Amino acid sequence: MGEPLSYRAAGVDLDAASDHTSRIAGFVSGGVTGFAGAVPLPQMRDPLLVSSTDGVGTKLLLAQELGRLEGLGQDLVAMCVNDLICVGARPLVFLDYLAVGKLDPNITAELVASIAAACAVAGCALVGGETAELPGLYAKHHFDLAGFASGVVERDDVLGPERVEEGDLIVGVPSSGLHSNGYSLVRKLIEERALLPDAGLLLEPTRIYVAEVLEALRLGVRVRSAAHITGGGLPENLPRALPDGMGAELDRSSWDIGDAGRAILETGRVDEQEAFRTFNMGLGMCLVVAPESAERLTGLIAGARVVGTVQPGATGVEGV
Amino acid sequence: MGEPLSYRAAGVDLDAASDHTSRIAGFVSGGVTGFAGAVPLPQMRDPLLVSSTDGVGTKLLLAQELGRLEGLGQDLVAMCVNDLICVGARPLVFLDYLAVGKLDPNITAELVASIAAACAVAGCALVGGETAELPGLYAKHHFDLAGFASGVVERDDVLGPERVEEGDLIVGVPSSGLHSNGYSLVRKLIEERALLPDAGLLLEPTRIYVAEVLEALRLGVRVRSAAHITGGGLPENLPRALPDGMGAELDRSSWDIGDAGRAILETGRVDEQEAFRTFNMGLGMCLVVAPESAERLTGLIAGARVVGTVQPGATGVEGV
Repeated sequence: MGEPLSYRAAGVDLDAASDHTSRIAGFVSGGVTGFAGAVPLPQMRDPLLVSSTDGVGTKLLLAQELGRLEGLGQDLVAMCVNDLICVGARPLVFLDYLAVGKLDPNITAELVASIAAACAVAGCALVGGETAELPGLYAKHHFDLAGFASGVVERDDVLGPERVEEGDLIVGVPSSGLHSNGYSLVRKLIEERALLPDAGLLLEPTRIYVAEVLEALRLGVRVRSAAHITGGGLPENLPRALPDGMGAELDRSSWDIGDAGRAILETGRVDEQEAFRTFNMGLGMCLVVAPESAERLTGLIAGARVVGTVQPGATGVEGV
Repeated sequence: MGEPLSYRAAGVDLDAASDHTSRIAGFVSGGVTGFAGAVPLPQMRDPLLVSSTDGVGTKLLLAQELGRLEGLGQDLVAMCVNDLICVGARPLVFLDYLAVGKLDPNITAELVASIAAACAVAGCALVGGETAELPGLYAKHHFDLAGFASGVVERDDVLGPERVEEGDLIVGVPSSGLHSNGYSLVRKLIEERALLPDAGLLLEPTRIYVAEVLEALRLGVRVRSAAHITGGGLPENLPRALPDGMGAELDRSSWDIGDAGRAILETGRVDEQEAFRTFNMGLGMCLVVAPESAERLTGLIAGARVVGTVQPGATGVEGV
């Protein structure tokens, strides 16, 4: 029968796990016990707890292929907290789930450090996380990364389609490159040698919009609703910020699709329509705003500008 | 150059995604917009927001190998909410992250349905989730599953080691089999033909302790702290419910290690000490309780019994 079997012999490296745990300990805040992380809830009148989860998709495969993991933590946090801000919620806590084929504390500690840094930008606490070594599910050097964020908003302050009025304007906020969507297509373009594997262009971390949007809300700017432009692009995400019976008319000449969007189109391998349905094409967030507040809003958020109008009697997005 | 490339051609199946979305829609509750899920927070004096994340580990590989996925949703929810209850928090929301190599709506809908059913048992709302199709990261029929739960507890009611007193008793609550830890070793034992791949024995879903523990707290049973017995078993998890300078002395004859624990030991391939450090060995949760409350507590939680005492001047766990 041979030597007795151990958990370690089954492919789970407990020393690496212990090393990983000690190296990430300084990044995790909050926490009342070892079992779950805690933060005080602010005193509020009628609070809603708002939660979101997301991953970074196959951007992490490209990041691994190019040996550049340092932006992934920001991508992960951004994907979650930018969803919260779409309802006006202030992120309070973040947790990560990191699954690896073989635990390498050098890599996992770098990832958790980048997550912690991004949480600081988003103003939330990294209160916990799970790092799972799953031999057999992931190849040795593969990993997956998922994140979860929760925050709060007063019920009266919830942003959403029901607040949108005729005549409202749409403010677009520039993305920082492709953010974290469409990377299966990006990798296909690279594989076909239609696109250069340029890390600076293709791996720019996802912009976190939280602080600027919260500041606008705090100052009373009349934001009605917001759309985080992720998978499906403007055509699928912007309508989620609009009520039934209203559409968006965008002026394509009013914003820059950005270097990454241009690089995708210049491959000649992706139709413009498909590109707009797959990538954010220069706008990572759209805010629907009362017309009298539009100038104030664009003054508060770097690069923001009016990109369109709300159209009663329409549906979907015109102009892209 | 061939046909223009599309996101679909890059391996992302948008029809399957749409089918999946429509099939899970009925399971998701809460939600103020399509971007993030929301639930009202109860009125409380000084609330803490408590959060936890976990996965089901390589139990999902065994479940796939045996073609029995239906318990995984409960495993996932249990792993998270049982952590929350260790600090006395009531779970409010749950979100899942499901990553697949190739989206099969039959499988993903079954998984989400089982998650939703388990959320109902735990008394929390499934407010959202992410289903990611990640060709290239996961093999075609592989998937990974992570969960996230948040809940609330009054600051004054937080359970934890600092409440434990000399003379307190340790109440053990039976596990439902192996729960969701140690499956890399289980799969190794099966691979070596030391253990039969018995789904009934090895895939029993993880017991959810939330309702019974919350009821005990509501009735004023003087629970001091609690430990969810996961990876590392009793020796690593029970001390997390005890203050520095106190240990646990367990009476091994006072509980049944269960059929799954016995099956592991009967392979003859795993030392008893290693088994206790890898599996829960019959106890899925331990509650530290004031001696005068022990009988009341064991009367409220099915199968619970006194399994040991808190020992001042000791460390760790004696008796296993």
